[in-house]
Amino acid sequence: MMFADDLDHPLVHGGGLAAARRLFADAPEPFIDLSTGINPYSYPLPQLSPDLFTRLPDPEALAAIAAIAAESYAAPSAAHVVPAPGTQILLPLVTALVAPGRAAVAGPTYREHARAAALAGHRVSEISDLDAAREAILVIVTNPNNPDGRLFDRNELIALAKRLARRGGLLIVDEAFMDAGPRDASLAGEVGRNAIVVLRSFGKFFGLAGIRLGFALAAPQLAMRLAATLGPWAVSGPALALGAAGLADRAWAEDVRKSLVAAADRLKAILSNAGLEIIGGTALFLLARTPAAPDLFDHLGRAGILVRSFPEQPSWLRFGLPGSEAAWTRLQIAMAAYADTH
Amino acid sequence: MMFADDLDHPLVHGGGLAAARRLFADAPEPFIDLSTGINPYSYPLPQLSPDLFTRLPDPEALAAIAAIAAESYAAPSAAHVVPAPGTQILLPLVTALVAPGRAAVAGPTYREHARAAALAGHRVSEISDLDAAREAILVIVTNPNNPDGRLFDRNELIALAKRLARRGGLLIVDEAFMDAGPRDASLAGEVGRNAIVVLRSFGKFFGLAGIRLGFALAAPQLAMRLAATLGPWAVSGPALALGAAGLADRAWAEDVRKSLVAAADRLKAILSNAGLEIIGGTALFLLARTPAAPDLFDHLGRAGILVRSFPEQPSWLRFGLPGSEAAWTRLQIAMAAYADTH
Repeated sequence: MMFADDLDHPLVHGGGLAAARRLFADAPEPFIDLSTGINPYSYPLPQLSPDLFTRLPDPEALAAIAAIAAESYAAPSAAHVVPAPGTQILLPLVTALVAPGRAAVAGPTYREHARAAALAGHRVSEISDLDAAREAILVIVTNPNNPDGRLFDRNELIALAKRLARRGGLLIVDEAFMDAGPRDASLAGEVGRNAIVVLRSFGKFFGLAGIRLGFALAAPQLAMRLAATLGPWAVSGPALALGAAGLADRAWAEDVRKSLVAAADRLKAILSNAGLEIIGGTALFLLARTPAAPDLFDHLGRAGILVRSFPEQPSWLRFGLPGSEAAWTRLQIAMAAYADTH
Repeated sequence: MMFADDLDHPLVHGGGLAAARRLFADAPEPFIDLSTGINPYSYPLPQLSPDLFTRLPDPEALAAIAAIAAESYAAPSAAHVVPAPGTQILLPLVTALVAPGRAAVAGPTYREHARAAALAGHRVSEISDLDAAREAILVIVTNPNNPDGRLFDRNELIALAKRLARRGGLLIVDEAFMDAGPRDASLAGEVGRNAIVVLRSFGKFFGLAGIRLGFALAAPQLAMRLAATLGPWAVSGPALALGAAGLADRAWAEDVRKSLVAAADRLKAILSNAGLEIIGGTALFLLARTPAAPDLFDHLGRAGILVRSFPEQPSWLRFGLPGSEAAWTRLQIAMAAYADTH
């Protein structure tokens, strides 16, 4: 199954609060955005030097963040790290690292992967099982997967990469949610000796999605090709500064991981109590299934709460984590009211 | 003449203050960076909402800045505008809008154009005269040109674009410095009816190069292809907010244009008084020629002033504008001291 083009579905990506406000014009404010998988307990914003805004980003700051990211993600070295303005913009570049051919996207997942692979000239199909990737030259896996949290076996992925390598292919593993997941499942340490490119998102785990910062981890030869295409100033000064501070702050990361796990448990209880079946997720979001999903989406929207719906899976809803006690309370009340009437 | 690869020349791009500090370790601080063509009178930084950093950039903010940019640059409509994290990252994408073939870069100019065209698979040559572009499928012109400020005739460029269109080619006009130049020479209004893509830089004129914001102006069909490759969140939240504020602030732009012209005159006087020949420039930088350029580069470096040198043109130096009276004074003293000893 391929996802339909979603240009006509402004709410399908998550994060489209302006469109939600128009759709639910009478909803109470502030609108609560649970439509993304972004950590609501964001990394504290320091005072940013005006130089970060006014000057061209210094090439040495770019080199520095590559080194910090290599250590934080346990990549082999800074030469294996390509900083970019978000992982999104990397997708057409990494999918173009192999010549056009058959591409397989393990799904259902984030639809931008299939779109990017198609832009790079590949014939894209969605597979539900890695064994179905046998004829592909490019395989894209999100690990843990979005939206269902499915975790792929590390050794299976490495074996798949070895098979791909034998025919000049490549495995792309999008680890956008790995910081909040079982980090020992990461393939960051494997990119030097296997045909694997790992994508890591800074903004999701650090709750700073607006600054646009992500990384490709790859063998140095591939990393150089990606860096050459991005050019010397792809990442903004504020993103370089915030990224370097956040990635080096191990204590903050340890603390927030615990907070996220506790918050996901709390969310699970609220959704389960309202009769929803939890079919997956990570510490940053939960995927719920209910035949009444379209109704519930509207009910929550009228209560000023935006969640993520899936046109191709009408019984699914994805819930991100509320970021304040006020938001938790409003969600709890809205879910209880819904449960009472269904 | 093609420029050599400059990965080994950390100071060749401009803006590499960290490398300059190592090269001139005993220079007085603060180091003054005159190595770029970035407006030192930067657009005042407002208090930025934390939401701009924490949330994914809203698609509607992207649509809004396209509309504001269309009006500011006098492009036909918002559908002709592609916002991007800087024009640098657009270069490999716009050069890939035509199938690989012969590309001609009007030079000497910003070397990233030739590099990007080569990455897109073109055979690139530098031309000093537009008439030499006859066999090219892709022609890249910087107007006004960097570093010499050369202005290309509007009608000649349109005629060239028409010839290119007849063979399926494209003209790319990088108007990075047009905001501080003769704006009626811009081809922004022509992108709808000609095979022309115009690049506009926000950061240079607004003195906010660190935020990474630039635009491609192109026919809607090409604009859609570029936007599809960049994806929905290429531009950061802070860049969208600062860009929308700056582009709409016509009064600031008018005032700063006058300041830049006055500052360029002042710079010209200082350089001429020191015996340098001014061979070109814009209101944002001046290009000087002197056989003693390498000596002068070192002399200024030891005085804590970084200017732009050109390995392939050793008698050239490019000077950006000092941003404070203290910087003007230090430049004046350093240039006078140099003139006294030469």
